[in-house]
Amino acid sequence: MEFRALDEFSKKYIPLLDSYMRDLLRGSPEELYSAAMHLIKAGGKRLRPLMVIATARALGGPDAEARALSLAIGIEIFHNFTLVHDDIMDNDDYRRGMPTVHKVYGIPLAITAGDLMFSMAFLSVIRAVEVGLGHELTVKAARTFADASRKVAEGQGYDILFEKLWDVDENDYLKMIYLKTAALMEASASLGAIAAKARDEVVEAMGEYGRLVGLAFQIRDDIIGLYGDPAKTGKPVYSDLRRGKKTLLVIYAAARDQDLRRKLESIFTGKLTEESLREAAEGIKATGALSYAEGLAQSYSQMAIERLERLRSSGLIVDEEAYSVLRELALFSAQRDK
Amino acid sequence: MEFRALDEFSKKYIPLLDSYMRDLLRGSPEELYSAAMHLIKAGGKRLRPLMVIATARALGGPDAEARALSLAIGIEIFHNFTLVHDDIMDNDDYRRGMPTVHKVYGIPLAITAGDLMFSMAFLSVIRAVEVGLGHELTVKAARTFADASRKVAEGQGYDILFEKLWDVDENDYLKMIYLKTAALMEASASLGAIAAKARDEVVEAMGEYGRLVGLAFQIRDDIIGLYGDPAKTGKPVYSDLRRGKKTLLVIYAAARDQDLRRKLESIFTGKLTEESLREAAEGIKATGALSYAEGLAQSYSQMAIERLERLRSSGLIVDEEAYSVLRELALFSAQRDK
Repeated sequence: MEFRALDEFSKKYIPLLDSYMRDLLRGSPEELYSAAMHLIKAGGKRLRPLMVIATARALGGPDAEARALSLAIGIEIFHNFTLVHDDIMDNDDYRRGMPTVHKVYGIPLAITAGDLMFSMAFLSVIRAVEVGLGHELTVKAARTFADASRKVAEGQGYDILFEKLWDVDENDYLKMIYLKTAALMEASASLGAIAAKARDEVVEAMGEYGRLVGLAFQIRDDIIGLYGDPAKTGKPVYSDLRRGKKTLLVIYAAARDQDLRRKLESIFTGKLTEESLREAAEGIKATGALSYAEGLAQSYSQMAIERLERLRSSGLIVDEEAYSVLRELALFSAQRDK
Repeated sequence: MEFRALDEFSKKYIPLLDSYMRDLLRGSPEELYSAAMHLIKAGGKRLRPLMVIATARALGGPDAEARALSLAIGIEIFHNFTLVHDDIMDNDDYRRGMPTVHKVYGIPLAITAGDLMFSMAFLSVIRAVEVGLGHELTVKAARTFADASRKVAEGQGYDILFEKLWDVDENDYLKMIYLKTAALMEASASLGAIAAKARDEVVEAMGEYGRLVGLAFQIRDDIIGLYGDPAKTGKPVYSDLRRGKKTLLVIYAAARDQDLRRKLESIFTGKLTEESLREAAEGIKATGALSYAEGLAQSYSQMAIERLERLRSSGLIVDEEAYSVLRELALFSAQRDK
């Protein structure tokens, strides 16, 4: 599957986003700012800021771009901040094929770099007022952003607590990934709509689109975490299994195969071999968990696209290219292999 | 020395602040919110939020109180967030006489609880719009807050980096404590003035007052960290020395006594005994470092009071009780023993 519009859009905006982020994350002490830029410099798909900009342009045309950029950068810096702290908590050594921030700079500076990134993310959102967003919409954007950041912390809390629990069901899981992952995509699309100065109902409809894309994205993330190619993902394989992460695959499989559940429990508590992990991954697939998860991700992706089509039928889309980007973002999130 | 106005003000507002914070920091997952409330429930002097409220009332009268409360809570939650992360970085076991958050909840949940507190702090600042601050001033408050949070992270970065350096002079130190400590007090007084809807020059003058109080406060903190009573401070004695913290006392003493400097360096790198720490603390005192630091804290405190008196001469003070609280906050910061 090709993602022509998304590729073009990425080529246009990623260099711009990167140069803005480099300018913003410059200061003293230098070592702290280097730590804050470490993961951002390693690249990434930048899907969230692209979603902000594409939404702003789709609904508001070219005028919305400058207002959207400042919000988009806030979202991307925030997202990277969460990864810096997650890697410390999970004691992960690699991300995007590079050593993680705390491996290079030590834990104290990595925690502080994360906190600095969080500050800078907020600052970037608030600075949208300087490029014509207006005070009322800037407050609305900051509020949306702060609410999302609260949800992300709650989701991370659930993710940590679920590692030690076995009575986690699919509903618990969906709530957790909404908070941990989808809430920030919901905020991305909402902020794009705010940058376009869209009406409240349109901001909400776009938020719904972002939420659905986020759910598809996280389910797909669970899939490629277990069956993906580490050379493409940049992360070690089976790390979710090793840590006892309650992914959709694990929850689905454990509910359907009691022997496998006991085996998985013992994996999480006992000594792990590559062989036992591979066997567990095969056992999970045998329950139909992979097909189920793929189907669910596709279904969220389709629902997201329906939300877009409804907005288009209402005559709210003013930029067809940006509309295609949003459509492809929904498709890509459910199909990506990295 | 008595602090009558400050004591009265504390008795009136601390229960109110505490109940607002308990209401705000309630949610799911419960364990995460308990972790976020852990340090806040342990008490604390609440000097920063009291400064916000006293400034707002001194300049704006009783009407400013409701607007100030939301900002004050943001400042206090943010301050507690920095302590939660600091304790992880410093691997400290006790704070306010209680086990630290990561000792009780583990590092992953403690990092996440800190991140949640940061989000909630921002949310509380932005919510001032709901109690009549207006969109323009809410953006200004959020901007002031975000700027301060950036500075605090930079200051924390310097503090960490200075632990391993010996060519840190008094200017480096003053810059570091401005960022790490005084910037948040500067923001506290500025936010109080914003809540009072004061003119820009008045907001700046109050910020200057807060900055000076903050410098006095941190120098005093260094003093009681070395010569204070652990039963009063709630922190283990000599922990700054153990960690190689470049306090004003250490910088002053090391610059004036080469033998002591070598001894301090060996303390920071070698094996520590209570005896060698006590000797070092006495050696530092013998250089005149304690008198010098006390004098400097007093001098910042006096400058802060002069700023207040200037505002009063201009007829800007509308609440004498709140004015006395601000005056006593400046005095207390330089004289406190806890």
